[in-house]
Amino acid sequence: MKENNELKQKSVKVIPLGGLEKIGMNITAFEFGESIIVVDCGISFPEDDMLGIDLVIPNTTYLQENKERVKAFFITHGHEDHIGALPYVLKDLNVPVYATKLTQGLIELKLKEHNLLKKTRRKTVKHGHSINLQDFRVEFIKTNHSIADASALAIYTEAGTIVHTGDFKIDYTPLFGDAIDLPKFAELGKKGVLALMCDSTNAQRPGFTVSEKMVANTFNRLFSENSSNRIIVATFASNVDRVQQIMNTASIYGRKVVIQGRSMVNVIQVASELGYIKIPENTIIEAEQMKNYPDEKIVIVTTGSQGESMAALSRMADSSHKSISIKPGDQIVFSSTPIPGNEKAVSKVINELARKGAEIIYQDTHVSGHACQEELKLIYALVRPKYVIPVHGEYKHLKAQEKLAVSMGIPKENVFVLQSGNVLELSKEKAGITGQVKAGEIYVDGLGVGDVGNVVIKDRQNLSENGLIVVTIGIQKTTGEVMSGPDIVSRGFVYVKESDNLMNKIKVIAEKSLDKCMQRKIRDWNKIKSMVRDDINEYLWKEMKRNPMIMTIILEL
Amino acid sequence: MKENNELKQKSVKVIPLGGLEKIGMNITAFEFGESIIVVDCGISFPEDDMLGIDLVIPNTTYLQENKERVKAFFITHGHEDHIGALPYVLKDLNVPVYATKLTQGLIELKLKEHNLLKKTRRKTVKHGHSINLQDFRVEFIKTNHSIADASALAIYTEAGTIVHTGDFKIDYTPLFGDAIDLPKFAELGKKGVLALMCDSTNAQRPGFTVSEKMVANTFNRLFSENSSNRIIVATFASNVDRVQQIMNTASIYGRKVVIQGRSMVNVIQVASELGYIKIPENTIIEAEQMKNYPDEKIVIVTTGSQGESMAALSRMADSSHKSISIKPGDQIVFSSTPIPGNEKAVSKVINELARKGAEIIYQDTHVSGHACQEELKLIYALVRPKYVIPVHGEYKHLKAQEKLAVSMGIPKENVFVLQSGNVLELSKEKAGITGQVKAGEIYVDGLGVGDVGNVVIKDRQNLSENGLIVVTIGIQKTTGEVMSGPDIVSRGFVYVKESDNLMNKIKVIAEKSLDKCMQRKIRDWNKIKSMVRDDINEYLWKEMKRNPMIMTIILEL
Repeated sequence: MKENNELKQKSVKVIPLGGLEKIGMNITAFEFGESIIVVDCGISFPEDDMLGIDLVIPNTTYLQENKERVKAFFITHGHEDHIGALPYVLKDLNVPVYATKLTQGLIELKLKEHNLLKKTRRKTVKHGHSINLQDFRVEFIKTNHSIADASALAIYTEAGTIVHTGDFKIDYTPLFGDAIDLPKFAELGKKGVLALMCDSTNAQRPGFTVSEKMVANTFNRLFSENSSNRIIVATFASNVDRVQQIMNTASIYGRKVVIQGRSMVNVIQVASELGYIKIPENTIIEAEQMKNYPDEKIVIVTTGSQGESMAALSRMADSSHKSISIKPGDQIVFSSTPIPGNEKAVSKVINELARKGAEIIYQDTHVSGHACQEELKLIYALVRPKYVIPVHGEYKHLKAQEKLAVSMGIPKENVFVLQSGNVLELSKEKAGITGQVKAGEIYVDGLGVGDVGNVVIKDRQNLSENGLIVVTIGIQKTTGEVMSGPDIVSRGFVYVKESDNLMNKIKVIAEKSLDKCMQRKIRDWNKIKSMVRDDINEYLWKEMKRNPMIMTIILEL
Repeated sequence: MKENNELKQKSVKVIPLGGLEKIGMNITAFEFGESIIVVDCGISFPEDDMLGIDLVIPNTTYLQENKERVKAFFITHGHEDHIGALPYVLKDLNVPVYATKLTQGLIELKLKEHNLLKKTRRKTVKHGHSINLQDFRVEFIKTNHSIADASALAIYTEAGTIVHTGDFKIDYTPLFGDAIDLPKFAELGKKGVLALMCDSTNAQRPGFTVSEKMVANTFNRLFSENSSNRIIVATFASNVDRVQQIMNTASIYGRKVVIQGRSMVNVIQVASELGYIKIPENTIIEAEQMKNYPDEKIVIVTTGSQGESMAALSRMADSSHKSISIKPGDQIVFSSTPIPGNEKAVSKVINELARKGAEIIYQDTHVSGHACQEELKLIYALVRPKYVIPVHGEYKHLKAQEKLAVSMGIPKENVFVLQSGNVLELSKEKAGITGQVKAGEIYVDGLGVGDVGNVVIKDRQNLSENGLIVVTIGIQKTTGEVMSGPDIVSRGFVYVKESDNLMNKIKVIAEKSLDKCMQRKIRDWNKIKSMVRDDINEYLWKEMKRNPMIMTIILEL
């Protein structure tokens, strides 16, 4: 009995609840003894076939079922795929949230929107500091990423230390703040690391991610070469260092900065209140003041670098922006690369901008926020973990990380490419998947959380491809006689005004089906409905190779 | 009078009816005197927001309105975006189609599907030969592209010669057949060229497109390194040279070739009948025979390199393929690059294949079929045109071509970045847009051509995002009394079985609206409908931030 208990006490469980099937929705539970802590709590954006879905959050049933054991959330950085689901999950799980200052600021922005700010205990942590909880100690370690204040975590337990890199890259010459705390990784490695959970986003890419310095050089060149044009820079709102860089360059070249896009305005406000952006004096102006300055004295910093249809840049592109019109000569800098899936949307915006005479610039104006293979190897060389768990990626990325780990001397059986919901139990002696908990995606549509699932999505897909025909029939309840109808209405099927013949033909077919039903004295409404549906269906497929959704509605009289 | 006529006689009109807004749907009319000829007649694939649309064809009203003047179609090569709309357009326009042998073979495949083979006059042309029509002479010129038998066209008129490059690249060392006929371009240039219409696809890319030789080297390496694995190569069905290459390499390494995917089978059959593919003896086997050979003696050549959900490779990936299962160790070669917009679909297939233990290879296994900047410059240097019309591209590509033309000494005012429908009139003396004809996109959905337009698409979009609520009410015709309902049915809105409360609430709101209408003695059905709709709408937006389509149906009794 005792021995068994001892063994149990000395293993730590790693339970990813998301983040391993695609890039997004990062959340992992760690369990030791009676305590659970959670690292990150992000959303993912809907896939193309999740029609009408606004965002996707992780299924955290497992945490809710073990409510009393969950001690805290630790957040590695302030990107949506790491903080976005917090308001949804904290509604049922009121535990403290630990994060560095800027990350905390961005979390607060989110909580405010959901009226959860007061209710939530927020604890701001500094890099190098540790939080002691019952069975865990968690230390925040400085890293570099495409957002300031990003952290790796060292999670200390009696079973050993787990290092979670968060999203990171190695930038020896960051423009602002310090380089990643490599000595700390070395120190951890020296003391012994049980497991490394490592960012896999760029694990397929050879080489090193270029330093942010390169982007600075490009901006400098662009600002000096365009002494007679307006410059518009589109980038991620959360990339505060990039925004800082643009402001500094603007200030050097005597340009005023106009901020556009709600999230850009929000993030810059938070970042500047917390001291993460230093706005050079007399630099920022409102869009309305632009008319007081010549074009060559203006830089617009805007959201919309991913071609998002409602973002400020897209509205400038399609002339629906309330205060900014694109004009010939505008130099539009895409300081970003399209996230996979957004290529066409970005292309569309670029074509619209070009049509208005703007010049589009996208070379050397962005660097990735994630470590490439040589950086990853360095981390392995320093941390020298016993086990490896690739995180943050699609399957192909996780497999690339595995390959890299093996190339760095980790035995293949010590690398665990997990799926969400797997319970991985780790101890110094052994490791393996010992269980499975509920995990998956929950759809958010408007204010509804989880009320749209696969059945509803299937209907939406069918409606979107083929449209709908509604057949309404009034039937006398007792006699079964057709009193009214069939009336035919359609939506998303054909252009009705030019399809009189077709609509009439459908009505005739419905009438014939009803006659058949009456002759056979069928009184089962469902049977009548399906006969009408099937007859129309058959006709339309034969004639048009189409299958709209057909709804037969019987009104009982 | 005479002078005027003379002037008219000496200008040629170029009227693009597609191909300038995006890559796809290439078709251009040329008019001289009383004659019209048309170059290419392609489809484009639907954009993401064209829900349910199968393909898009050009609006050719202008050609139909000038039927008796249209003399012929000239097709540059056998890709869908150059031949795909022929069956639709030829239905109303029975004129001969001129093309080289393989192109003609692929056109015939298409016409057969539409039962148009017998009706259509098809004329096969050899490179270097000319066709004389009333006011035009058209010469076919050998080029290189990602499909065999591609042509540029020299269109000779009294007003001057127009060179249309078609889709091309310069491959000095093609694996099969000859290099592009550069001497012919030089000869044309020497004699004087009025206008160059030039492929803009890669006009933004510096350098040269690599020769197909590089791909051959990669295949050689892959086949020699994988002496114990099955190899699966996904590529475009129409890239017959690539398929030839794979077969040859397979034959050298003693592997049998299995062809998968309907279009792959069709194209290979046509190409081999016409002598464009030489299948090495005893190389091709059926999928069923695979069991007689060890894995290392098999190559599967398949469609699906773009992640198309119904293609053979996707079916292998999701285990729905009837005869081929992916197994660990399979080497899967993507001999293609994703066309913009297909990146995520390709990623999905790659992840599924990797999950089954396959290795995915995509480095150095494909080259573009389109000329990059240095190749384009060479064409300008040889052809030395007076006017330039960038073709085959989105606006950004056309603008890049313009920039390149200017850099090669063409005056900017002699470069015409056109839009579909523009009538460009060219003569040695002057050039300019002198008119506009009808042009645009027609949607094909199933067998329906043009019966789905923007109104229908808007409905489909709305249905796909939000679903639908149908409210049915039976009203006594003469008294206006509600006799039955309101009944509420929904699709694609919420999961109804778990939303009893909500559905009841909607019913109550509809009842209240009806009561209001009755009290106010409203007898206008449309007014009643819109009141019910508005009330439900308001409630749902307030409560859920959703706006499903609401259809109110009144059955008159």
